[in-house]
Amino acid sequence: MAETSASPTLLLKDELDIVIPTIRNLDFLEMWRPFFQPYHLIIVQDGDPSKIIEVPGGFDYELYNRNDINRILGPKASCISFKDSACRCFGYLVSKKKYIFTIDDDCFVAKDPSGKEINALQQHIKNLLAPSTPFFFNTLYDPYREGTDFVRGYPFSLREGVPTAVSHGLWLNIPDYDAPTQLVKPLEKNTRFVDAVMTIPKGTLFPMCGMNLAFNRELIGPAMYFGLMGDGQPIGRYDDMWAGWCTKVICDHMGWGVKTGLPYIWHSKASNPFVNLKKEYKGIYWQEELIPFFQSAILPKDCTTVQKCYIELSKQVRAKLGKVDEYFIKLADAMVTWVEAWDELNQTGKSSEVPNGAAK
Amino acid sequence: MAETSASPTLLLKDELDIVIPTIRNLDFLEMWRPFFQPYHLIIVQDGDPSKIIEVPGGFDYELYNRNDINRILGPKASCISFKDSACRCFGYLVSKKKYIFTIDDDCFVAKDPSGKEINALQQHIKNLLAPSTPFFFNTLYDPYREGTDFVRGYPFSLREGVPTAVSHGLWLNIPDYDAPTQLVKPLEKNTRFVDAVMTIPKGTLFPMCGMNLAFNRELIGPAMYFGLMGDGQPIGRYDDMWAGWCTKVICDHMGWGVKTGLPYIWHSKASNPFVNLKKEYKGIYWQEELIPFFQSAILPKDCTTVQKCYIELSKQVRAKLGKVDEYFIKLADAMVTWVEAWDELNQTGKSSEVPNGAAK
Repeated sequence: MAETSASPTLLLKDELDIVIPTIRNLDFLEMWRPFFQPYHLIIVQDGDPSKIIEVPGGFDYELYNRNDINRILGPKASCISFKDSACRCFGYLVSKKKYIFTIDDDCFVAKDPSGKEINALQQHIKNLLAPSTPFFFNTLYDPYREGTDFVRGYPFSLREGVPTAVSHGLWLNIPDYDAPTQLVKPLEKNTRFVDAVMTIPKGTLFPMCGMNLAFNRELIGPAMYFGLMGDGQPIGRYDDMWAGWCTKVICDHMGWGVKTGLPYIWHSKASNPFVNLKKEYKGIYWQEELIPFFQSAILPKDCTTVQKCYIELSKQVRAKLGKVDEYFIKLADAMVTWVEAWDELNQTGKSSEVPNGAAK
Repeated sequence: MAETSASPTLLLKDELDIVIPTIRNLDFLEMWRPFFQPYHLIIVQDGDPSKIIEVPGGFDYELYNRNDINRILGPKASCISFKDSACRCFGYLVSKKKYIFTIDDDCFVAKDPSGKEINALQQHIKNLLAPSTPFFFNTLYDPYREGTDFVRGYPFSLREGVPTAVSHGLWLNIPDYDAPTQLVKPLEKNTRFVDAVMTIPKGTLFPMCGMNLAFNRELIGPAMYFGLMGDGQPIGRYDDMWAGWCTKVICDHMGWGVKTGLPYIWHSKASNPFVNLKKEYKGIYWQEELIPFFQSAILPKDCTTVQKCYIELSKQVRAKLGKVDEYFIKLADAMVTWVEAWDELNQTGKSSEVPNGAAK
């Protein structure tokens, strides 16, 4: 239904930035050249700012290292993580585009079961441009996809759907497992290609991975903060999870959709499970408190913008999770700093209005 | 994780009945012979009871026509629909087994993308024997399936899962569309094989189709009532939907899981959209009231058995939906009659206890 004959890739050429956090030369872009070259890249260099990152020729990009982040944000730079891929959210902040696609530099082009290379970016764009259906589950999955529709028993009043804020893609080869699962199943590969996109229902949380992720920055950008991780912080590898839980609660409140499923990328290499265990250990423990917190979080009706929702959520984090560990007080402060930085760098006023109607 | 080397098909040979509603000779069983022959069939003959239904040789079955239903249930037979496949739930009532698989007689064996015939029953048994995960979404779908697991960020406290009450299978070829969609897309076929099973999250409703469905009768049987449809009733084709909404609300309350996805069957022939439109028309209209009703239905804590839940739901149907149409008062009465009939025919006391712990 929502598919058009015009290529969606070309449609959004000037409306989408690709954000890549990295500490190394970006040779992985060679494989993505046919798909990414028409787009603008925002590269966020993590670690030593004096290191030179090589970007293959022919790509249109801007690159920010830690010195740039400090210069641009001043004291507010404290909200951007260092020595952790959470630094990627700086790219969301400085982008001026409506859509963001972010991908890790160890992710390559996957093939579908017919052997055809998958244009992950094109699928994300399709996901973002078609509505979502968070209020009722469609058993044939995405009803807007060619060759399918809403099934018998699906209320007609819900068939228009709602705007899609997030498109979460998956990974073939190395699955996104936590350290304990990596240790227990060191050889497990994801070989199953599940040919589906679906909306995650309202009220349901999910583990959002930042490896292969796209979102409507104009809708949900101010909540896509990847938290305080890495250098000087007690945890890592929960940056994308934190963003996922915050954005899902806010999308549910605003009446927007979050999709998961296609596209797949090829995740080339598992990170070191022993290093990961050290980074994750407090997160694994805290998570048992975080999930009930986000499951029961309620945003008041007067939270009519994402910024207002996010500030309200930061207050709840401080009040409720601050008791779990003082880290969450620091994180609540950083959430406020992030929104202030967002508003400073995005002063068109556009992103602080409510697109597509009032909060639900 | 949950897969065993022993064939689950053989494991449940004496614990599962196959229920088939029909008005014609059961030639379709020939194609299912390799998969169904070890099992016991319960055939519910709809329409004219004097008609002889031919069952291919070699199958172990019992057959009930309308005269049998009237004789066995007496005045309570009024709760069993006539001239509608909703009559199938009589088979659930008279079964003495722990599990039920029900299938329509226009459903044939489908093939997977490799061309291999799909043993739908075996997949349903796998689904029912493995736990469900209704409290948090796993982005790699069923975490208990071979070659997959819970992903990073999935709370460890939720990884044991909960008992699975329902396994909802899908259809290749003719999709299960309502009459308006059939009319608009007369030629649409479902050709997409989505290789996934997933738990429908707690709090989310879905359109449950009765064409290819299995359930744990000991857990959810008393709520698997297909309502008043067909002869003498103002609607049809909402029998399975009604059962799906009631069972989902009760499973959510009891802390049990509902799965959808694999297995596929081959649905051979679309029913007449003009006839369907007449049957569905009031349902399409009423549905807009039914969904908010079920979405907001709350069962009190003292509803600790499925029977108590179902009686409570019948009271809410009478009080709230009775205002929509007097049909729902009749339906609420029939819900009570159904539970009375269930308890009369299932007097071991087993099904009125709470298996696997108290209500959540």
